[in-house]
Amino acid sequence: MRRRSTLRLTAEDLAAGYALACQTVVEGDAVITIPPQEKIERRLVTDKTAAKVTLPFTYDPVQHQPMRLFPLQLDSPDMADQTDDWSRLKRVMTTTYDVSDLTANLPTLRRLGTVLREHNWAATAVVEMDSWDRHNGSPRLVDLLPPDRGEHLWGAALDIGTTTVSLYLVDLLTGEVVTKAAEYNGQIKRGEDVISRIIYASKNDGLGELQSLVVDTINELLERAERRAKISSSEIYKMAVAGNSTMIHLFLGLPPSSIRLDPFVTTVNHPPQVLASELGINIHPEASVDCLPGVASYVGADISAGVIGSRMCDSSALTLFLDVGTNGEMVLGDCDWLISCACSAGPAFEGAGVQDGMRATVGAIEEVWVSSETYEPSYRVIANPRLEAKGLPTPPCGMCGSGLISLLSEMFITGVIDKGGHLNFDLGSPHIRQGEHGPEYVVAWGSQTEHGRDIVITKVDIDNLVRAKAAVFAGFTVLAQGVGVDLSMVEQVLVGGSFGQYINIEKAVQIGLLPDLPWEKFHFLGNTALQGALLALLNREYRQQVSEAAQMMTYLELSADNTFYDAFTSALFLPHTDLSRFPSVAEVLAEREVQPVG
Amino acid sequence: MRRRSTLRLTAEDLAAGYALACQTVVEGDAVITIPPQEKIERRLVTDKTAAKVTLPFTYDPVQHQPMRLFPLQLDSPDMADQTDDWSRLKRVMTTTYDVSDLTANLPTLRRLGTVLREHNWAATAVVEMDSWDRHNGSPRLVDLLPPDRGEHLWGAALDIGTTTVSLYLVDLLTGEVVTKAAEYNGQIKRGEDVISRIIYASKNDGLGELQSLVVDTINELLERAERRAKISSSEIYKMAVAGNSTMIHLFLGLPPSSIRLDPFVTTVNHPPQVLASELGINIHPEASVDCLPGVASYVGADISAGVIGSRMCDSSALTLFLDVGTNGEMVLGDCDWLISCACSAGPAFEGAGVQDGMRATVGAIEEVWVSSETYEPSYRVIANPRLEAKGLPTPPCGMCGSGLISLLSEMFITGVIDKGGHLNFDLGSPHIRQGEHGPEYVVAWGSQTEHGRDIVITKVDIDNLVRAKAAVFAGFTVLAQGVGVDLSMVEQVLVGGSFGQYINIEKAVQIGLLPDLPWEKFHFLGNTALQGALLALLNREYRQQVSEAAQMMTYLELSADNTFYDAFTSALFLPHTDLSRFPSVAEVLAEREVQPVG
Repeated sequence: MRRRSTLRLTAEDLAAGYALACQTVVEGDAVITIPPQEKIERRLVTDKTAAKVTLPFTYDPVQHQPMRLFPLQLDSPDMADQTDDWSRLKRVMTTTYDVSDLTANLPTLRRLGTVLREHNWAATAVVEMDSWDRHNGSPRLVDLLPPDRGEHLWGAALDIGTTTVSLYLVDLLTGEVVTKAAEYNGQIKRGEDVISRIIYASKNDGLGELQSLVVDTINELLERAERRAKISSSEIYKMAVAGNSTMIHLFLGLPPSSIRLDPFVTTVNHPPQVLASELGINIHPEASVDCLPGVASYVGADISAGVIGSRMCDSSALTLFLDVGTNGEMVLGDCDWLISCACSAGPAFEGAGVQDGMRATVGAIEEVWVSSETYEPSYRVIANPRLEAKGLPTPPCGMCGSGLISLLSEMFITGVIDKGGHLNFDLGSPHIRQGEHGPEYVVAWGSQTEHGRDIVITKVDIDNLVRAKAAVFAGFTVLAQGVGVDLSMVEQVLVGGSFGQYINIEKAVQIGLLPDLPWEKFHFLGNTALQGALLALLNREYRQQVSEAAQMMTYLELSADNTFYDAFTSALFLPHTDLSRFPSVAEVLAEREVQPVG
Repeated sequence: MRRRSTLRLTAEDLAAGYALACQTVVEGDAVITIPPQEKIERRLVTDKTAAKVTLPFTYDPVQHQPMRLFPLQLDSPDMADQTDDWSRLKRVMTTTYDVSDLTANLPTLRRLGTVLREHNWAATAVVEMDSWDRHNGSPRLVDLLPPDRGEHLWGAALDIGTTTVSLYLVDLLTGEVVTKAAEYNGQIKRGEDVISRIIYASKNDGLGELQSLVVDTINELLERAERRAKISSSEIYKMAVAGNSTMIHLFLGLPPSSIRLDPFVTTVNHPPQVLASELGINIHPEASVDCLPGVASYVGADISAGVIGSRMCDSSALTLFLDVGTNGEMVLGDCDWLISCACSAGPAFEGAGVQDGMRATVGAIEEVWVSSETYEPSYRVIANPRLEAKGLPTPPCGMCGSGLISLLSEMFITGVIDKGGHLNFDLGSPHIRQGEHGPEYVVAWGSQTEHGRDIVITKVDIDNLVRAKAAVFAGFTVLAQGVGVDLSMVEQVLVGGSFGQYINIEKAVQIGLLPDLPWEKFHFLGNTALQGALLALLNREYRQQVSEAAQMMTYLELSADNTFYDAFTSALFLPHTDLSRFPSVAEVLAEREVQPVG
């Protein structure tokens, strides 16, 4: 076993036998002890069991939660007091709880008399004390339950991703996330990315169809969560929703066409509160559905939710928040100011637009190592649990984003490709060859793969990935320049999005996707959009914070910015034209030069 | 020709040859000159051409009308200003018109982008500045029209009667009623009165069916009005609705069952604003439908509307407001206080519960005279216009309310019946006979009638009518006693309801239905409920006034009041046990005694 790099390992570590797993080549039989660590949950789009979601505050429903339950005992009417049912209920709310100016919609009033009379004038009122867009609005009676009900009050936090829709089912009385569910967005069959969906939406009833598709997905997730938590859909009284601007438009049935046309404007960045019944969401029909506010066409509610979900607003540290998916969206700032931009990274890091790219599901190569001597690749595949249970390996069928980053970095560091992404045929490896579509590197031979075909990365794929990473890095550069700070001054890098959870920081730095900062400054936060939706669902202060964050956030339109093009061009190399911006990479490259080659 | 009474005619009148038509018997050929007078519109339930409806104020839409049109020219977005459409529209509303905090519902937002882009960022905004139940609420964008639209803004005032639904189509820019329409309430086929409809509503989907039936009637009226005014349904942006509590409950789909059960409580006296689309009303789906507030189960929005429609609130004169239909509802008071009650008069005055009773349509006997010598009746029939055009008489087929009052009075004054309502067989008239169901008086022989059967009034009918009038009069008595005033102190009697328009005051006083006050104190105001809805539709001050009137109005529950039973019993005579309360009737009776009989 040979350590290819000892960077970041102390002499103590080395003495104790530690090695960097990703920088170590196994040359013979070896016993390897892996220190206990968190299990990596790899299947992004499948359901997860309810890992404890922690809140950054101690939840007090009375103080934080706009949804409240009020047990009521009304005086029964008689000839001396013929007050109508609704005024009678309002009266007891005022006298017992000092809640005045209660309002109700017609469907709630229609049930009022029956509930009151069937339970001898006792009931439990479900009240929304204030609402998203009307902080000082009147409280609203959302439902009137029999008196023996009302031990529970449920809500749902939702992140509508272009690819994946994720849901938290939340106990609004305790603040606890009781179950999670995630599923592919049903709209996928009508287009993989937002642009193709926007185009589809403009055709015939495309918009209506896309709206139905995502609502079907959400209802399916709800049903699954309700089944697990053993609750009924009508007990869910509130929903908070994050998503990019296109997803929110399609969810609400708002035409998204202007989002993709110059000058890239949404219909509405902060949609008004709507009722579940207006959208066909199978929760209580009078439940309010709050879409979190977005900032611009390509910095949507997922990002403002991410800003509060990542808690970058709570800190005075200069923070870079990053959500890489089809687009790279990023925010720079602290508790006092925020500046954001979006760069069309393209879907390469999601495995699309790459010949053997795929989503991060079973069979995806998620990590690659290339031998610096033989240029032979080895890899790790997201395992099929059934095969894994039998002790069998899962054959690969493609590469997901983290695998591609890993591969690109390994090829670069080992010299399989140069800084321009050109394959080095001089190495004489059978893995480097002229393929049907030009130069390519074989990651897995057909004999090992699921489908029997070779899994390769082509020069075209490499160029796509380099353009994608260059767009993201150019975004950082322009943001920092825009406010006159240097990227090295960034005190923390918060990476949101499910994609971010599985990438290898070192390798992402080595290809120049992430800025070269000490590893401890990077924090992978998972689905920050969903976390932000959860905070807004639970706490009116966070609800207020996300509103303010969206409003205070400056949006930098990169297509109107020449400095972006310059920064992009400079970043079209591995890791960058200016290697001095990546000192740790320069160090590794220098180390490689002095390593014995054979 | 012989004057039977000269009461209320001056010596001058007599010298000029005037006679009281209803008190004069034609004994031979005579040339009669009738002074020009207003044509009586008799067909209550058929449509009327748009008689000019006058308003008690000079209409200024900017000052009075919550619905406003705002021509807008937005800045078009560019890369330097990527503000979303909705924020852009709100911005121009603030900068141009100082209208801030604009809200909109989802259906309006869905059309926003298209309208703005198709018309080069010019548009006309239809805005509801404030609303019924939220005086200080945020203005709401109800529609966004192309810039060349917006020359008109229509509204509708509606009175949902148990029998008849009446509608005004109103130009909200000028305040003019452009057309009227009226039609039988389609619910009639499921019950003639409120009680039978309440019972029907409690069966299976009776409520849903009754709601649909009245909505169908309303949509039919709207269609008719729109056709006449040549407008489209989507141009009607507001509706104000009056009706009794049962009608309002059925209209809104609120279960009405508690209205008829002790202690007679409604679900809601003042319903919240609802949208046309929630009810299925074919006007603009985002138009608000404002139901006027009622006071109690049997003093509904028709009465509070009547109070403002009759303008009794505007006067310091002690006023008795009266709306006689199936129930007799009455309000006593002035601009400072109001007290109301409802007495179950029963439907006798609407022609129901009386053997030959009918509604006031073609063929109904609407006025009767009885000869004080021969006890022969003569009558006037509501003419069939087609027969009338050919100079042919319309054969009678029954008697409507005004005909019944007239008949009862004539029979009493001529001695055909005594003050107990007993027929006087001693008179020897062939019209007074023993019928199948007891004593009866023949008003028209079968040879003259439409259906070939005799039209009669039976002792049972007479008792029904006496009970009905006694209930109404007892109501007056109890109201007056309740506040310690004498009925003779009443300065004006305002009679609302279409029924009131056609009754003969003198005859109504003679049977003891109306208090014996000078004729000039009586004012027949027609459909005061519709007039009240119109005022609330046009003017937020009247909207406020009807709210206040409903709130300040004391409701006296007669069934909980012993004095009512006493007053009722005393009124079960013609005109009353205590003749001194009817001095003018005493005078006529005294006059009759001294008239030569042969």
